[in-house]
Amino acid sequence: QIDSARLWGTIHETAQFGATPKGGVRRLTLSAEDKQVRDWFRKACADAGLEVQVDALGSMFGLRKGRDMSKPPIGVGSHLDTQPTGGKYDGVLGTLAALEMVRTLNDAGIETELPICICNWTNEEGSRFAPAMMASAAYVGDFTTDDILSRKDAEGVTVAQALDTIGYRGDAPVGRQKFTSFVELHIEQGPILEAENKTIGVVDSGQGVLWYDGKITGFESHAGSTPMPLRRDALATLSEIVLAMESIAKKHGPKAVGTIGEAVIAAPSRNVIPGEITFTVDCRSADAGIMDALDRDLRAAVSEIAAKRKVEVQLDLVWRKAPTHFDPKLVDAVENAAKQLGYSHRRITSGAGHDACNLNTVMPAAMVFVPCKDGISHNELEDAKQTDCAAGANVLMHTVLALAGV
Amino acid sequence: QIDSARLWGTIHETAQFGATPKGGVRRLTLSAEDKQVRDWFRKACADAGLEVQVDALGSMFGLRKGRDMSKPPIGVGSHLDTQPTGGKYDGVLGTLAALEMVRTLNDAGIETELPICICNWTNEEGSRFAPAMMASAAYVGDFTTDDILSRKDAEGVTVAQALDTIGYRGDAPVGRQKFTSFVELHIEQGPILEAENKTIGVVDSGQGVLWYDGKITGFESHAGSTPMPLRRDALATLSEIVLAMESIAKKHGPKAVGTIGEAVIAAPSRNVIPGEITFTVDCRSADAGIMDALDRDLRAAVSEIAAKRKVEVQLDLVWRKAPTHFDPKLVDAVENAAKQLGYSHRRITSGAGHDACNLNTVMPAAMVFVPCKDGISHNELEDAKQTDCAAGANVLMHTVLALAGV
Ligand SMILES: NC(=O)NCCC(=O)O
Ligand SMILES: NC(=O)NCCC(=O)O
Repeated sequence: QIDSARLWGTIHETAQFGATPKGGVRRLTLSAEDKQVRDWFRKACADAGLEVQVDALGSMFGLRKGRDMSKPPIGVGSHLDTQPTGGKYDGVLGTLAALEMVRTLNDAGIETELPICICNWTNEEGSRFAPAMMASAAYVGDFTTDDILSRKDAEGVTVAQALDTIGYRGDAPVGRQKFTSFVELHIEQGPILEAENKTIGVVDSGQGVLWYDGKITGFESHAGSTPMPLRRDALATLSEIVLAMESIAKKHGPKAVGTIGEAVIAAPSRNVIPGEITFTVDCRSADAGIMDALDRDLRAAVSEIAAKRKVEVQLDLVWRKAPTHFDPKLVDAVENAAKQLGYSHRRITSGAGHDACNLNTVMPAAMVFVPCKDGISHNELEDAKQTDCAAGANVLMHTVLALAGV
Repeated sequence: QIDSARLWGTIHETAQFGATPKGGVRRLTLSAEDKQVRDWFRKACADAGLEVQVDALGSMFGLRKGRDMSKPPIGVGSHLDTQPTGGKYDGVLGTLAALEMVRTLNDAGIETELPICICNWTNEEGSRFAPAMMASAAYVGDFTTDDILSRKDAEGVTVAQALDTIGYRGDAPVGRQKFTSFVELHIEQGPILEAENKTIGVVDSGQGVLWYDGKITGFESHAGSTPMPLRRDALATLSEIVLAMESIAKKHGPKAVGTIGEAVIAAPSRNVIPGEITFTVDCRSADAGIMDALDRDLRAAVSEIAAKRKVEVQLDLVWRKAPTHFDPKLVDAVENAAKQLGYSHRRITSGAGHDACNLNTVMPAAMVFVPCKDGISHNELEDAKQTDCAAGANVLMHTVLALAGV
């Protein structure tokens, strides 16, 4: 059993790095706050006897030796970056539970057959740089390191510059640290476990993701003197696109979601009809066929709206992540651990994307979920119970021990 | 007859202050660019023998003496500030035509009975500070000078600070410079004169304006893992409000317009459902009854949408300007001048607000319109013909001469 109070303590200790007045965390990837938590994590790993490496995209790996060093370690972990108005648990729980597991094994003097490597992946959130799960995507070869290094945030700062600024551009080439398999603990970020009063979600699948960059070019004109029928209003156009995305997603019932998260009017003014808007779209489904339908329906709706309103709408797919089907043997291993520890559990699909989803494309991977309050995440009010976090950490540890061998 | 080439030259000379790559002007009120054009205008006034005064809100007055100095002057002018992506003529034409008139009278050695005062009113546009026509509103007593001085722009800079920064907080108390009457020349900013092939618009009325500040408080949540029915999406809410405003305005046919010009998502992120949005509403009609209906219908729609989406929407009326009915005698004077000069003309309602609309509440006022290309304004592509501008300036001068007496 892990030390529940110690785990809880580290979660709340690190929550001070980027703490917001509303009790959340603002720790954008590769920001000054991210450097603070990274420095903390590096020291904690070193103190726990781990050998820390940083790769060229800033992902951090803490290696605990096993008896058989000829095989790659079992990877465990998550991420320490957050949304602009994020919570204390998203990513943090999985990374610090991995650390807590190492501390527990150390305290108990437990050696494993295979080595264990605990990980903090760079830019899982994807809100400063696109795509989300950026570093693990490069790890599995979906993008080249150079491509990712050149990605820019809204201020035009590249990943390379941001890494250099905080001193986290490491020596290790991306992908050099191999793993035998990978396990990630995370809060559910959805309402199911709580509603069904289950402690552990045995994650067997994950939604695929479509991310688009959009741009509407209408025509700026005077709000007072431009008759309604002559307008080419970019915001009215966006409004129809937002509501179209909503009804397209709803059409597929619980099997799809669609969101416009960002929308910026160029040169806004109270008495100017918006002429240009940039926006983003995020839509998802665990069903590849539905993902195709979402893409098709969204493009058709956008074309129709653009034609009707005589505006131009550009819609570029900037990221497509296929649905995830986690490795059946690893999923069973998670389920067995939950069973043996006596926690209530159910199989579950992840609504969010996770580094484990990327890693699963090149190695066996699986995930453990614990409930969070009201299913709320990506919000400063995100909350989770200490007992649930500890239960998740125990399932994580026992899964890893089963995979690594004692 | 005014000097058409000289007027055209000053319009294009001042267009360099804040010139944009697309051929427009960005000269927000009280900005560094505004200081440049103000300095230019002050020197041009002094060179034309005018006595220049600046009031406590930065409005500039250039006085040309008349034979009878016991009566207040005829006021003539407009504004030199622009929208963030504005054109070269909106406001500029009216201010520089007033200057051109003085130059023409000087050259011809014409004395008038009453003095003439040419004006550059501060913050007519209303995009940096609300409301629009701010200084003339204070002039007529709709707001106190202190209230206006404390208004803030989006960066939190007050009018007082902005005035001090560019050195245009003048000594003259607001309202001290009296006028016998006021005449303003402006581009139409709408499509009617051009469509009907008329050179001069004899403006007999102006739309009333309602400005609101809005705030939507929904709930931030994860774009991937939050089921559609559980969302309280602030952007989807805004979208319904935008489309409701549009259909409410359309319901009143050509007699009303409604626009959401600004909308800002708090802490935007691709994979976060927007939780908070601030926005502005501008709606207008020349009919006071329709203005009441717009207000009622908008509030009803907003309440219904908010209830349906389980979000909170705050909607504060921050400015209400009643419709304008210009002084009949002055309107006739404008029409007579157009007739005598042989220009095609028609009576017209102003879609935009103007300083003359404010001044008309305390003195006889009127306006002269000239066509602009495709009715486009508040756009860098705003355009007007030299011959039309000159025609407008001639009508302006002859109206003023009729009022001032030769
Ligand atoms: N777990 C999580 O919130 N990941 C962020 C990436 C995404 O799913 O949008
Ligand atoms: N003339 C003009 O564009 N005025 C700006 C104020 C407004 O009508 O919104």
